[in-house]
Amino acid sequence: MAEFDKIYQKYLSDFNEYLDKFCDELNCRPDILKQSLVYSLKLGGKRIRPVLMLSIADIIGTGAEKVKIFALALELIHTYSLIHDDLPDMDNDDFRRGRPSNHKVFGAGNAILAGDGLLNTAYSILFDECFKGNEYISAAKFICDCAGIRGMIAGQSADLLHEHDKDVDEDVLEFIYENKTAKLITAATVVPSILNGGKFYPELKALGKKLGYLFQLTDDILDVEGNFEKLGKSLGKDEEEDKLTGVKVYGLENCKLRVDIMGDDCIKIIDGIDGDASFLYDFVNFVKTRLG
Amino acid sequence: MAEFDKIYQKYLSDFNEYLDKFCDELNCRPDILKQSLVYSLKLGGKRIRPVLMLSIADIIGTGAEKVKIFALALELIHTYSLIHDDLPDMDNDDFRRGRPSNHKVFGAGNAILAGDGLLNTAYSILFDECFKGNEYISAAKFICDCAGIRGMIAGQSADLLHEHDKDVDEDVLEFIYENKTAKLITAATVVPSILNGGKFYPELKALGKKLGYLFQLTDDILDVEGNFEKLGKSLGKDEEEDKLTGVKVYGLENCKLRVDIMGDDCIKIIDGIDGDASFLYDFVNFVKTRLG
Repeated sequence: MAEFDKIYQKYLSDFNEYLDKFCDELNCRPDILKQSLVYSLKLGGKRIRPVLMLSIADIIGTGAEKVKIFALALELIHTYSLIHDDLPDMDNDDFRRGRPSNHKVFGAGNAILAGDGLLNTAYSILFDECFKGNEYISAAKFICDCAGIRGMIAGQSADLLHEHDKDVDEDVLEFIYENKTAKLITAATVVPSILNGGKFYPELKALGKKLGYLFQLTDDILDVEGNFEKLGKSLGKDEEEDKLTGVKVYGLENCKLRVDIMGDDCIKIIDGIDGDASFLYDFVNFVKTRLG
Repeated sequence: MAEFDKIYQKYLSDFNEYLDKFCDELNCRPDILKQSLVYSLKLGGKRIRPVLMLSIADIIGTGAEKVKIFALALELIHTYSLIHDDLPDMDNDDFRRGRPSNHKVFGAGNAILAGDGLLNTAYSILFDECFKGNEYISAAKFICDCAGIRGMIAGQSADLLHEHDKDVDEDVLEFIYENKTAKLITAATVVPSILNGGKFYPELKALGKKLGYLFQLTDDILDVEGNFEKLGKSLGKDEEEDKLTGVKVYGLENCKLRVDIMGDDCIKIIDGIDGDASFLYDFVNFVKTRLG
């Protein structure tokens, strides 16, 4: 994994540099609006969506440079979703990446606007990309739909609706996993394909979905077994808010078994992708080993 | 004004029919997500932005048909902004168009998601338009920037920031008027030009700004002098929330004088637009006569 870590860090630091530059050049008033946007963007994190998009672009020959702006837009959308998710009226989380949530620093009103602002800015930079040609429009539209009312927002809505469910329903959990988490990860895996004539489209779409499930499964397990220092967010929140999670539906041990199955499914999909996909195999392991 | 009313009603009913069809065909789960989106979209209202865009498109020869989807997207964006504005953490309004605000019906969490969903859906339909050519991309990008962090969201942020200001500042008020209100109205006036080779671009941009000021001035006055039955929203809210309004900065009577001046400015701009612009002259009067 040493080689994997090195490559991951390279993608991560390149992306963070690009994001920092974007933040520095962000020109808007009043100051508190810019501060609140930048605060959440610079909270750090693993940036799994951008790293995934950039690395896949290199693996299938699209080239990381071509997808860079899409990776940025996707991270803006992901960050907006965290800000809104953390609000008292949603999941009511006081911490994010080890630091106070946006609304704890700037107040809920400003946090709502910060989220709105990030979402809108993501599309503003994507509209600029659209002038480059139809495949760029298709890629932008794909991201937009993954984030939308038949994507992430549908998942968040179902997540909210099924708090306190007495009867656990596996179909509902699947719907939440697929939409709340897997759709944005699928955007990361599929955009490099759209910008490269649809290369490995079915494989990359399937991979995004499975990786999304894998990621959410480990997330649900970590909410029970993780520690604050490592995760930087409050734990035991799912039980506190009585969320419909993998742990609630399958039980903790079965959830861990599913992590292994889902990991194997990812590996099988990656087998079908030509080129040096060693980074992707390690990426699956990297998500699995979040569990320690 | 009888002729004006007839034409306004025609644009309005055509647009509402189109919006109803859009709502009926809206396909998303869970049900509560669709219900919350549709509830706010169907609350009615004067639809001044779509009517303005469609009528200007006819006046300058773009044709209403060509801008229809942009008018829909703009109304989605406007509706999202009302839902988020009404939230307890923002302006805390319990009524909108004579009926309970979105969050009073669906809860604040769902209202946040409904707003996010409308904003995202607006861009999803605009990305589809982008395939039609560069001027469509430019028009979509123009709307996006009017709604964004150098547009409406900047205005909302300043509006929130300057509640309870002891020293009233005319520059700040101008910033709020221009961004919170005038930018989206400018999107309505300018899109027909962008889709028609930039015809009357400077005039229509200037008109949007002045009409926006005029609209917000009358809004501020009506918050003091209007009545609930006619407006369908809570009154006296500005004073209650101690907002920086035209009334606070200029005083009520000077505010009314400014309405006349701003109306005259609009008329002068419309004088520069060839074609049968009689609808626009009446439109200015229509906004002014909201004051009764």
